[in-house]
Amino acid sequence: MLRSREEYVARLLKMRPNLYIGGEKVGRDDHRIQPGINTLGVTFELAKDPAYRDVMTVASSITGEEINRFAHLPQNPHDLLQKQKMIRIYARRVGGCIQRCMGHDALTALSICTKEMDEEYGTEYHGRFLKYLKWYHENDIDATCSQTDCKGDRLKRPSEQENPDAYVHIVEKRQDGIVVSGTKMCITQAAYADELLVLPTRALMEDDSDYAVAFAIPADWEGIRMITRPVWLREKDELGACPFAKYGVSDSVIVFDRVFVPMERVFMCGEWKYGRRMALLFADSHRHSYSGCKPGVSDILCGATALAADANNISKVSHVREKLSLYAGASELAYAAGVASAIYGERTSSGTFFPNEIYANVGRRMTGEMIYHEYNILTEVAGGISVTLPFGEDFDGEETRADLEKFIVRNSKISAEESLKIWKFVEAVGASAMTSWYLIAGVHGGGSPVMETIALNLGFDYGQRRDVARYLAGIKDDLDDSKLLNMNPAFGDRLK
Amino acid sequence: MLRSREEYVARLLKMRPNLYIGGEKVGRDDHRIQPGINTLGVTFELAKDPAYRDVMTVASSITGEEINRFAHLPQNPHDLLQKQKMIRIYARRVGGCIQRCMGHDALTALSICTKEMDEEYGTEYHGRFLKYLKWYHENDIDATCSQTDCKGDRLKRPSEQENPDAYVHIVEKRQDGIVVSGTKMCITQAAYADELLVLPTRALMEDDSDYAVAFAIPADWEGIRMITRPVWLREKDELGACPFAKYGVSDSVIVFDRVFVPMERVFMCGEWKYGRRMALLFADSHRHSYSGCKPGVSDILCGATALAADANNISKVSHVREKLSLYAGASELAYAAGVASAIYGERTSSGTFFPNEIYANVGRRMTGEMIYHEYNILTEVAGGISVTLPFGEDFDGEETRADLEKFIVRNSKISAEESLKIWKFVEAVGASAMTSWYLIAGVHGGGSPVMETIALNLGFDYGQRRDVARYLAGIKDDLDDSKLLNMNPAFGDRLK
Amino acid sequence: MLRSREEYVARLLKMRPNLYIGGEKVGRDDHRIQPGINTLGVTFELAKDPAYRDVMTVASSITGEEINRFAHLPQNPHDLLQKQKMIRIYARRVGGCIQRCMGHDALTALSICTKEMDEEYGTEYHGRFLKYLKWYHENDIDATCSQTDCKGDRLKRPSEQENPDAYVHIVEKRQDGIVVSGTKMCITQAAYADELLVLPTRALMEDDSDYAVAFAIPADWEGIRMITRPVWLREKDELGACPFAKYGVSDSVIVFDRVFVPMERVFMCGEWKYGRRMALLFADSHRHSYSGCKPGVSDILCGATALAADANNISKVSHVREKLSLYAGASELAYAAGVASAIYGERTSSGTFFPNEIYANVGRRMTGEMIYHEYNILTEVAGGISVTLPFGEDFDGEETRADLEKFIVRNSKISAEESLKIWKFVEAVGASAMTSWYLIAGVHGGGSPVMETIALNLGFDYGQRRDVARYLAGIKDDLDDSKLLNMNPAFGDRLK
Amino acid sequence: MLRSREEYVARLLKMRPNLYIGGEKVGRDDHRIQPGINTLGVTFELAKDPAYRDVMTVASSITGEEINRFAHLPQNPHDLLQKQKMIRIYARRVGGCIQRCMGHDALTALSICTKEMDEEYGTEYHGRFLKYLKWYHENDIDATCSQTDCKGDRLKRPSEQENPDAYVHIVEKRQDGIVVSGTKMCITQAAYADELLVLPTRALMEDDSDYAVAFAIPADWEGIRMITRPVWLREKDELGACPFAKYGVSDSVIVFDRVFVPMERVFMCGEWKYGRRMALLFADSHRHSYSGCKPGVSDILCGATALAADANNISKVSHVREKLSLYAGASELAYAAGVASAIYGERTSSGTFFPNEIYANVGRRMTGEMIYHEYNILTEVAGGISVTLPFGEDFDGEETRADLEKFIVRNSKISAEESLKIWKFVEAVGASAMTSWYLIAGVHGGGSPVMETIALNLGFDYGQRRDVARYLAGIKDDLDDSKLLNMNPAFGDRLK
Repeated sequence: MLRSREEYVARLLKMRPNLYIGGEKVGRDDHRIQPGINTLGVTFELAKDPAYRDVMTVASSITGEEINRFAHLPQNPHDLLQKQKMIRIYARRVGGCIQRCMGHDALTALSICTKEMDEEYGTEYHGRFLKYLKWYHENDIDATCSQTDCKGDRLKRPSEQENPDAYVHIVEKRQDGIVVSGTKMCITQAAYADELLVLPTRALMEDDSDYAVAFAIPADWEGIRMITRPVWLREKDELGACPFAKYGVSDSVIVFDRVFVPMERVFMCGEWKYGRRMALLFADSHRHSYSGCKPGVSDILCGATALAADANNISKVSHVREKLSLYAGASELAYAAGVASAIYGERTSSGTFFPNEIYANVGRRMTGEMIYHEYNILTEVAGGISVTLPFGEDFDGEETRADLEKFIVRNSKISAEESLKIWKFVEAVGASAMTSWYLIAGVHGGGSPVMETIALNLGFDYGQRRDVARYLAGIKDDLDDSKLLNMNPAFGDRLK
Repeated sequence: MLRSREEYVARLLKMRPNLYIGGEKVGRDDHRIQPGINTLGVTFELAKDPAYRDVMTVASSITGEEINRFAHLPQNPHDLLQKQKMIRIYARRVGGCIQRCMGHDALTALSICTKEMDEEYGTEYHGRFLKYLKWYHENDIDATCSQTDCKGDRLKRPSEQENPDAYVHIVEKRQDGIVVSGTKMCITQAAYADELLVLPTRALMEDDSDYAVAFAIPADWEGIRMITRPVWLREKDELGACPFAKYGVSDSVIVFDRVFVPMERVFMCGEWKYGRRMALLFADSHRHSYSGCKPGVSDILCGATALAADANNISKVSHVREKLSLYAGASELAYAAGVASAIYGERTSSGTFFPNEIYANVGRRMTGEMIYHEYNILTEVAGGISVTLPFGEDFDGEETRADLEKFIVRNSKISAEESLKIWKFVEAVGASAMTSWYLIAGVHGGGSPVMETIALNLGFDYGQRRDVARYLAGIKDDLDDSKLLNMNPAFGDRLK
Repeated sequence: MLRSREEYVARLLKMRPNLYIGGEKVGRDDHRIQPGINTLGVTFELAKDPAYRDVMTVASSITGEEINRFAHLPQNPHDLLQKQKMIRIYARRVGGCIQRCMGHDALTALSICTKEMDEEYGTEYHGRFLKYLKWYHENDIDATCSQTDCKGDRLKRPSEQENPDAYVHIVEKRQDGIVVSGTKMCITQAAYADELLVLPTRALMEDDSDYAVAFAIPADWEGIRMITRPVWLREKDELGACPFAKYGVSDSVIVFDRVFVPMERVFMCGEWKYGRRMALLFADSHRHSYSGCKPGVSDILCGATALAADANNISKVSHVREKLSLYAGASELAYAAGVASAIYGERTSSGTFFPNEIYANVGRRMTGEMIYHEYNILTEVAGGISVTLPFGEDFDGEETRADLEKFIVRNSKISAEESLKIWKFVEAVGASAMTSWYLIAGVHGGGSPVMETIALNLGFDYGQRRDVARYLAGIKDDLDDSKLLNMNPAFGDRLK
Repeated sequence: MLRSREEYVARLLKMRPNLYIGGEKVGRDDHRIQPGINTLGVTFELAKDPAYRDVMTVASSITGEEINRFAHLPQNPHDLLQKQKMIRIYARRVGGCIQRCMGHDALTALSICTKEMDEEYGTEYHGRFLKYLKWYHENDIDATCSQTDCKGDRLKRPSEQENPDAYVHIVEKRQDGIVVSGTKMCITQAAYADELLVLPTRALMEDDSDYAVAFAIPADWEGIRMITRPVWLREKDELGACPFAKYGVSDSVIVFDRVFVPMERVFMCGEWKYGRRMALLFADSHRHSYSGCKPGVSDILCGATALAADANNISKVSHVREKLSLYAGASELAYAAGVASAIYGERTSSGTFFPNEIYANVGRRMTGEMIYHEYNILTEVAGGISVTLPFGEDFDGEETRADLEKFIVRNSKISAEESLKIWKFVEAVGASAMTSWYLIAGVHGGGSPVMETIALNLGFDYGQRRDVARYLAGIKDDLDDSKLLNMNPAFGDRLK
């Protein structure tokens, strides 16, 4: 089933008001989260647009019906490649983060990990999850992932914290469900999602078994409070604001205050050994999603830089051309990492096809290390104007309009009106509240570079490289190439 | 003479209202420029504080009376070292740009270039300038430099522009003065300065002689309109805002609409050959000033990062310590470049002591290339919270206060109150409107890295290095070391 | 047909001596090129090894017989993925450059460009080439590509050069063939290849039509002189030298002194418009080959660094682990670029499947920019010993053996003998004549980063990004996503 | 007293043969160390050259007589500035490392630390050292510093090692002296120095007190064996070799086999608390010396790159100019760090003037991080020829001379002969055994970047920066600027 944008919004408006913004308790009709709703809305619109349908929708592996691809469990490399492309298309259209991949990546993680727990413990999580997912598909639900706990002291594990609510955990187990408490933070999209998919955020030890908990819950459920921080306040309500200004994002601190979760929505309950697995399944799937969105962000930065160069009439200057080409490198290397991750992914026991972790991590790390530099390039080419541009009202002011109309033109082939639009856009991209959000999300979203380094140090086969060196050094007589020889793409034979 | 902060403000309030902000014509009492006035105010306060007097004031080389060091023409290396230190102290106190060095660097440029023009052309600019400076010293005036023209098409010189007002230029020469028109942009501090020191912004050709013009003019003079863009709107008026939030900056587009400049305030009038010289004298002096302020900015970022690490309880983690040490490198290499520039500076024919250009340029370029990376480090250590922190009102909200008080503590040795102050500060430094301003000013203020590369390619003695290579390659029999042998510090013998 | 290593060598030994090394005219039995012959020999050996056959050989698209993959025209993405893997395996085994891909990439370029010229001009190059290739396949020939001309003045085109022999060109056209003269340089492998595949090196104008020439010729043909510069003189002949020391490389300046080329071996003859096309077809195919070899080189460096860390007993130190992970990023991003290039490649009119240029270029550029840094990491972890290690003889010296045996052990779990092998290997990798060769080839082989930037500035679709920005800025009402929507992998549907 | 070059050599030739090179025991007349002797020779020659005397010599603070500056204890900032300049001049003349600063920095460390130990313990080291230094000055002695122990397991302190000889230590204390054993490594210059100044290499604990030992000893003393590894074997003996090829370096493993040290040459004997102090005094002084030599190395690389650009006729190409300017940044920032270190140095209790550690460390670290990149620039501009250049004999070969003479010219303004000299030089600088040595010494000599980061994390005043942040964040009411206010240059008042 595919809901319309209007149906998505109508459901939101029926929700219990449990948002807090700037000291007020508000509902989903608060204008400060409208930009986020606009963003999500696009995912409902394009899914119904015939031109986009092939990419944005897919036949459900559960029901066989057409569903939004964000709700789909990938079944093969093609699904992952389509996901990458879909996310890049959305990113280019909404000016960056489409937000809805969080739900997708959480579903992926849950589908795999529930199966694996069942295999080890004989639990019934997977069936329960598939039932939930059927409902999800049939109703075109939008969930966000609620993973990052507020964590308290970074040097202590969950059960060691002074504040027990630093991580979400089970406080009571009942026949019909569990009661959970704790605090999540930095949860993008939560304020305008239908559901929350709650997962553990890290590896756990036996002491932490109460913290090994995963479940799905409506975002306005009893006991849930969201303290929401919207980005991009300025100008969004202006008439004639550019599309970039109309889209936006928010993050929430989510307080779980003795929240009852019915048993049919509980997908992990004490299996602490799977804490790390669940956390990494989400993280690695999400890092693969970055191979779609980060190239989209680079495309936007590249376009903004190119327009700034045009407006400055310096597009053909040698160092400007060299700088522009940096975006080609950044976007396409990130995209390539996603492609390789898809091609060398593997089918898990659940049937869900999962991207290759090494490629997902090297790609995500590179983008996290590059993001500040990409904005730097925009700034270098645009010049100081992006932060000194007079306010819009002055371009309309009686005494200042004529001055500023002459002032704004630097390339006689571009009109004052278009020049102003370019510089307003460059300001919005490179020197606004959204800039800070994209810089910081660019570093930390999906895990910061340090996290990918840790993941690589765990997953990368250094032993194989040591053996290459031992062979070439004459320490080992033979070099066993079998791992590399047998590193074949999934479905590889079909590529002949 | 040293004015008090109150005298500075009182004079501003008497000025003709010629500012335009957000579509309104306003006076110097507009609250949106108050943060900038607060910043300048500190330069009047500390100059009268006995603890700071030795650094912040100096005996005028014109009148012998005690003056603010910002108004002083440097006479020796000591003056430049004190200027560096003064600017760093101010930067640390106001959270970054003290703004007043612009006037200082313009006075330096005018003092030297007027003398050199007189020597070549027999003009009387230097005496005229000294008379102006005497008044300036006697009244503790604050001027900003008004250099950057709006420039129009970057590939054309001033006289080639379609829009003649793309650069400020002479439209009429009279017995008693000149009439000028044109537009300057990105002029920091102009909205709350007493005077504007107007200089050419680039090298000029004979056709451009009308554009070879320099003068001083009160900032509210007839025919001057300023369209002002203040930064840092949010929170500055809040009760209990932190000092960082109280200080701020603004930039102006300045329209010169047939402005009459009396002859005694005209310091260049058609001498196009000196266009580049005047432009570079300001730029190089200003790049030396950056060797004081950029280390101050790094100190602030270093402190913010260290507090964020403390609040996250990760100060002793290996990669955090390594990242912190980057600030030590950035700040001290920039400072060292300023020191070398002072020590190897030279006395000009005017008597003004001028910093060494090569050192000023290598230092400024490095800081321009590093600034985005420095903010990146802060972000890496601070994490996502700097851009997802709930609004201040929610920390006071009845239903959310208790949740957020627990939420904000990550290190049991730091109270909730202090933790919140740290994170609000980290947000203000790393994810606010000021962030964008400092990132972009960090790249472009005083000339972007590309400009320093150009300056180095002009001024760096590549021939000397080629000769070293020719000697070592056996192409030249001898190596003439005399340039390096004779590269001695100014006042060098006194260092024994 | 698959020749044995012995058959390859035997054919070399029958060739006319036309090599010049160190002032002597020598044959292919000169010991200084033995390391290169050892390297090529591996490509004959593994092709006959059952464990490797699937990767190293393939059914010829011409004859249907099993041939060495280096001689194969890729027919599909699978062929390109196998090529990547093959090259990486060889690189790990011979310590770096396997050299034989040069012939492969030249055959690819010739197969495509001959077809395209025939289509435009009605010439008969393609059939002629296929006939040649049949012979090539039937005899398991090894050719190198001979592309880089000595070029003379870089600011002038071929026909503008003072020295007409700066580029290889046609000096006479006869009924039965052509006569060519000129000089090629930096031609790796030429001294021990059967054949030379000669291609133009750059875009040409009409004046340059004599320089538009491509052909195949035996490496010892009348009129050809090779002045050969072998690398890796030291230790290779030592008993007990490690495998890394036994393999090596050489480059040649090749003088064509009125060389007659029979018509059936001429594949371009005056079609100057196709100069750039042929040059880029080789370059882009070769850049794709780098996505196999550079990861192999990174694997070797990673292994050397890991062994050095083991020998220093610092493998678990935090900064060492972080540095090791850099190799994971470098190798896998480069490999991923190759994978994406294969997956998004396209079938040309000739039937040859060609890698995607954008991905080939972003990958190659990144490796060219990283190579010095990769060696830097090895040096940082290994320490000064790699360049101060006493000579091997001293480890055997009567009076010094005992001292050095104690000296060499830094980790009690690693014996003196193994420690010494590690450090000799680290020296060989990081501080030997081969080091310089790999550093410089790492930058320039296949085209330096500047060349890839130029290629990207030509081929990257900046217009698409400008349109994204125009849409988001409100300049264009609509965003046409069709290019990205339709960017599908070759054979994409098979990946479902 | 100033010895002539001949006197220096004559003394060497009288020494006991205790060198081992390539399995042989040899004397100081072995041709493989001649390049090192040539290098040192220059320090004797220029000291007697009137044009250089002011810089290269100075009045001894002990005897008042003129001595070589390398033997001088700095007394003021001027001495440190002259030392910097001296080392840069020598570096440019010998193609890099002048080697003799090692002795200088060891003397500096000994002069200070002996005084401080005497002050704490009432020992008599300082007087003993001054007596030794008097002899040193009166005889124009050349010593190298022998600091780096072979260290064994990096995770263990000296007394914890399995191999007690991993560090030099006291094995017996006698009335008239001490007996020491152990192994030093990476000791540059030792093979042709008169004396060894032996210092501890790291911080020590009480258990390590036998390792707290410092002394001076003739390099051929009984019980000392040096296993010497010379660099730069090839071409140095050729007739007509370029100066770069004539100079060179060697490093030695030095075995102390129960070496008796007379008491008057013992300068530390068990004072383990001063192990770190002595080690750092040498290291920091040596890091200041790098602020002279590394700019010299950059000058050579800059010149080599500029000549390569000339020979390629690309000197005016935009990206080449930008790359060249990188050397200006690298060399002058490093030099500036040295200048600031001198200006902000301090007089120690011994009277010796010591460079500021923070500036010495930030400068040295930057150069260590840049060195591979600097060579990368040379390679980018020079192209592949530096590693594929035919051997010299082929340029003379009868059949190849004419070909190669045409081949080598790429700029018609530069003759074949000069072109060849340029490319031979570029090869020698960028692709020879010396290249590896300079790359690796560039990272590790004087302490690798990791060591400077550690030094900065100890010495940099992070507390001051935290206080800046606390003030701006509103955590502390006041900002105490006194440290920065009082940060004055040594001799600062004289700069007025």
